[in-house]
Amino acid sequence: MSANSFGSRFVMTSFGESHGAALGVIIDGCPAGVRFDTDLLQNRLDRRKPGHQSQVVSNRQESDAAEVLSGVFEGITLGTPIAIMVRNQDARSDDYKEIKSSPRPGHADDVWLTKFGHRDHRGGGRSSGRETVARVMAGAVAQMMLQQVLPDTRVIGYASQVGPFRLTDAERADVQSKDIDSFPARFPSASAAEVEKALKLAQDQGESYGGIAEILISSPPLSLGQPVFHKLKSDLAQAFMSVGATNGFELGSGFAATMSQGTDFHSGDQNVYGGIRGGISTGENILLKASFKPTSSILDIAKKGRHDPCIITRAIPVLEAMTWLVLADHYLWNRTDRI
Amino acid sequence: MSANSFGSRFVMTSFGESHGAALGVIIDGCPAGVRFDTDLLQNRLDRRKPGHQSQVVSNRQESDAAEVLSGVFEGITLGTPIAIMVRNQDARSDDYKEIKSSPRPGHADDVWLTKFGHRDHRGGGRSSGRETVARVMAGAVAQMMLQQVLPDTRVIGYASQVGPFRLTDAERADVQSKDIDSFPARFPSASAAEVEKALKLAQDQGESYGGIAEILISSPPLSLGQPVFHKLKSDLAQAFMSVGATNGFELGSGFAATMSQGTDFHSGDQNVYGGIRGGISTGENILLKASFKPTSSILDIAKKGRHDPCIITRAIPVLEAMTWLVLADHYLWNRTDRI
Amino acid sequence: MSANSFGSRFVMTSFGESHGAALGVIIDGCPAGVRFDTDLLQNRLDRRKPGHQSQVVSNRQESDAAEVLSGVFEGITLGTPIAIMVRNQDARSDDYKEIKSSPRPGHADDVWLTKFGHRDHRGGGRSSGRETVARVMAGAVAQMMLQQVLPDTRVIGYASQVGPFRLTDAERADVQSKDIDSFPARFPSASAAEVEKALKLAQDQGESYGGIAEILISSPPLSLGQPVFHKLKSDLAQAFMSVGATNGFELGSGFAATMSQGTDFHSGDQNVYGGIRGGISTGENILLKASFKPTSSILDIAKKGRHDPCIITRAIPVLEAMTWLVLADHYLWNRTDRI
Amino acid sequence: MSANSFGSRFVMTSFGESHGAALGVIIDGCPAGVRFDTDLLQNRLDRRKPGHQSQVVSNRQESDAAEVLSGVFEGITLGTPIAIMVRNQDARSDDYKEIKSSPRPGHADDVWLTKFGHRDHRGGGRSSGRETVARVMAGAVAQMMLQQVLPDTRVIGYASQVGPFRLTDAERADVQSKDIDSFPARFPSASAAEVEKALKLAQDQGESYGGIAEILISSPPLSLGQPVFHKLKSDLAQAFMSVGATNGFELGSGFAATMSQGTDFHSGDQNVYGGIRGGISTGENILLKASFKPTSSILDIAKKGRHDPCIITRAIPVLEAMTWLVLADHYLWNRTDRI
Repeated sequence: MSANSFGSRFVMTSFGESHGAALGVIIDGCPAGVRFDTDLLQNRLDRRKPGHQSQVVSNRQESDAAEVLSGVFEGITLGTPIAIMVRNQDARSDDYKEIKSSPRPGHADDVWLTKFGHRDHRGGGRSSGRETVARVMAGAVAQMMLQQVLPDTRVIGYASQVGPFRLTDAERADVQSKDIDSFPARFPSASAAEVEKALKLAQDQGESYGGIAEILISSPPLSLGQPVFHKLKSDLAQAFMSVGATNGFELGSGFAATMSQGTDFHSGDQNVYGGIRGGISTGENILLKASFKPTSSILDIAKKGRHDPCIITRAIPVLEAMTWLVLADHYLWNRTDRI
Repeated sequence: MSANSFGSRFVMTSFGESHGAALGVIIDGCPAGVRFDTDLLQNRLDRRKPGHQSQVVSNRQESDAAEVLSGVFEGITLGTPIAIMVRNQDARSDDYKEIKSSPRPGHADDVWLTKFGHRDHRGGGRSSGRETVARVMAGAVAQMMLQQVLPDTRVIGYASQVGPFRLTDAERADVQSKDIDSFPARFPSASAAEVEKALKLAQDQGESYGGIAEILISSPPLSLGQPVFHKLKSDLAQAFMSVGATNGFELGSGFAATMSQGTDFHSGDQNVYGGIRGGISTGENILLKASFKPTSSILDIAKKGRHDPCIITRAIPVLEAMTWLVLADHYLWNRTDRI
Repeated sequence: MSANSFGSRFVMTSFGESHGAALGVIIDGCPAGVRFDTDLLQNRLDRRKPGHQSQVVSNRQESDAAEVLSGVFEGITLGTPIAIMVRNQDARSDDYKEIKSSPRPGHADDVWLTKFGHRDHRGGGRSSGRETVARVMAGAVAQMMLQQVLPDTRVIGYASQVGPFRLTDAERADVQSKDIDSFPARFPSASAAEVEKALKLAQDQGESYGGIAEILISSPPLSLGQPVFHKLKSDLAQAFMSVGATNGFELGSGFAATMSQGTDFHSGDQNVYGGIRGGISTGENILLKASFKPTSSILDIAKKGRHDPCIITRAIPVLEAMTWLVLADHYLWNRTDRI
Repeated sequence: MSANSFGSRFVMTSFGESHGAALGVIIDGCPAGVRFDTDLLQNRLDRRKPGHQSQVVSNRQESDAAEVLSGVFEGITLGTPIAIMVRNQDARSDDYKEIKSSPRPGHADDVWLTKFGHRDHRGGGRSSGRETVARVMAGAVAQMMLQQVLPDTRVIGYASQVGPFRLTDAERADVQSKDIDSFPARFPSASAAEVEKALKLAQDQGESYGGIAEILISSPPLSLGQPVFHKLKSDLAQAFMSVGATNGFELGSGFAATMSQGTDFHSGDQNVYGGIRGGISTGENILLKASFKPTSSILDIAKKGRHDPCIITRAIPVLEAMTWLVLADHYLWNRTDRI
């Protein structure tokens, strides 16, 4: 197990600093015979790109054009490692010169320096959110693989809370029918415009918000998950909590379940289990939540006016990617569970 | 990576079904030269034992006497695998005969059967909570190792919520000074007696409660955690969410952070970060929470009157063990971060 | 990857010191649904036992009765970890008292002491050949699994050289028709009696021999092996070279191939490739060889008259077990090579 | 463990097909603080390059200019993944068109097609020797790391046999004082010119030779190697046997040891052990050998006149790289062997 690898059968290994030459990923373990969908790959990248989602995300400009370096031939995966890379372009290292001597508060700069004794001070280096480019590329390949064999499975991410704004129960119940990306901040609500306004204001005023992202897996594969330490829920928790700024994870009813008595909890709606029992997917929809603290980039002089007022909007494609990766890994793992 | 292994440098691999011959664990990667504390080992096991913690836990009787099979010589670890085993005694397989044909609702029985096509129907087999015996034994060894080099580090687990009962802010602030095990249900509160009474009643009436367990790591080692996928918080999330009945995880302020504005959140109490920034331990106290759903064993005819009305009491030693394991793993990992 | 684990999908983790309480193994990753053959397991153990194979092996007496602790229910594997253990009995620790202060020449005693700073001086501790008990048990399970799906695959081990004695070409060509275990020293030759006599004499005189063990895999599974670092030949080389006293490995024609010109080599007998090309099994018979240096236990005062005059006889069941383990691992791995 | 990764602590993951866009490697686990030597990196690449070593190697022209994409800042490693890439240039895919329908005899083409059901037919794809570019780059980083802390350790590779030509005993004893690269075919002998002539002739006539490469590790680090399955000798065997065209491996005296009696073998020259005992390095020089079968590219119409008449010359830098990788991996591993 290496620090920058994720997965056991469908394994991604990522590289890249925020202001280095490039970011990329090697996917090792993707079976041969998967139709490679270059459009899907680029679309997934575009969805996480700064500047893509209306005006409410950081306006760093990167073309993020994915280059597939290996593993695909004549549009089909070879069973060999798939390497994909994007070049960094809008680095603006100059902005970061003053940071060299003064680590940014709330960022990981000082803890990384303490740990490694040497750091790339430009834009956070590898602790930057830019690292998630690699996850999104790998997640796209995981999605290609799974959708070839499980065309009904969908992974739907959306914000259920942005700062003080929350979806109503009716809005949450209805997310499957919405085009989430058409909503500013990926908050599929009648109050979306209001939220957008609040975020724009926050960006201008150097304010930031936290929030909750939800991932709904509809028609998930059955029987995914390994007892004991690699339950589907525990690998998903690791995946979600590996994303920067996360500080909470829930499956199904989550912390709210603690307010119920067992006789009520277990006799009612199966949704309280969140689609996973005994660590293994039951085939029912899986519901996951991640909480994000308010972005710390408000403290960062270099990012003045460029920061994300709420990171959730851009984190959603990353959580979706991590979800596809966990599903792909367990899908392959499951192939060896019976003789 | 195998399904029943946990950790990358300090690696535990566990085995055993609830009503099989034995439960056990191999710890591979524990350095040579650790003073092996047999009393600590047995004490940790006794703390998770059914029937140990007052009257509010399942009364299955197991002596759970640990036998060290390898890896220790003259009271010192050899650097070879440490195997530890307990025999199962109070199996009462007869109780489980009727379950063979009728999987228990809310349990993992049916999902395991779907997955593996063959199951040990006696008491849940490997999906039983009894599996955690192995974790507790491994956690004890992790604790021995770390406390030899970091004598100040403590891992303190307690219930902050049991069903409708919650610690007051003052009680939570004061947990370090309490003898948690002296409180029924490990709920260190003036209302402990009231909670105990409620749990006893629940056991009699076939009712159960969920709750929240908290783990406080005081004086944790500095610089633990690996970017990107093995942040300390993500490995802890995986560890906690691998315990049965968990459905939520929080670091520091957790979901509550979503209610703050960034300017408030980042300007105040460092505790909101929970002792981990950029995925790496800062040396400040680390605060973790896990939510548990109400135990499903109320649905289990065979366990009538033997079930745990709230699993948290017994889960706390397991979460403590998982915490020690993650710390031990990252402590060794950290040794290779700099040349 | 941990030091005492082997395999990637079908993973064994072993434990035990020569004179500790027990030796054992956890097999993690064996699929559910394998018919567990207890007789096969015990038979494999008996074949490696000291004192089993005529008079030409060390006469330490161990019953080596395998106890299956988990993972098997109603004679079928559960898909959970299979733990198997044997107790040590004939330890004779007294014999080893004098060794405590004087490490044995040619043994690993001194290098282990330098490395770990602490050692179990009794009979070599974990560096003893007794460790191979765990391999043989795991190999038996691998064999059960594979033979259920690939009943024609056979793994046949035999000595092709014992000290100065070598099989004739005709004898080597004919090994598949022989009952290898019926030959002293597992040397299936007309000169077997002569070899036995030489070995008996060596044992009496404190002499020892090296030799060559060969493993023939007939009707092997097709398409096993992973490019690039886990070619079937490289994992087999690792497996064989992990056995004590080995110092050479060959596939097919091995070192002799260096004497041929390419035009000859590639135009003739396919057997020169040894059944593996490009790192992947072709379906043709696979031929492997391991060389063993003369046993060093002749230098060991405590073993006077108890030593193995040639370790190959007992190493053959170990190499067979390692072969089954590599095949089982790659058989499962191969299940995810194509979508 | 993934198919295209090697190592446990110092982990390389490689990618790239022979005629794809690029070849590259991610090194994960290299500690922070290593001075990065770009010249060493390029020099190592140049040494394996076709066309570099006189006239006796395949004359494909590649500039093989290494681009470091991440993990290094201000000339020092960051502790983050180090990605290095070279672009493919001299692809000549046209040459390979006719191969599409007719797999080349002796190559891996047909076995890969059987396994994966889809292949990149251009120049062998990933089964091509060009894959070793990634190994050489990773090995250079391993060398940088080790030489910073162990400046005396050297890894010296040379051919001891090329087809029918062998080094004399005196020449072998003297390799440490020679500039191996100054000898055609890296065969440091008075008959080097004769060998070169024979190889040139072979290239013209479509003939090829096998041979033996030796790797001498002088002043190796002490105490490297893990019992039981990751003995230094077994990881080295895996490393060497993962190189294409290898079919034999020896440590120290190797197969020749089988001709000695134990009393002779163990009483004389310590070199017979090859610098490793009980699987662990003793600090004495380590001697390793690999045998290579005659190159099969003589069978390859597309390579007419471009093939390597003896692959050893170019394989030596690859074996050196694999040796540095194993040493680096075990060097870091060894840091956690004692508390």
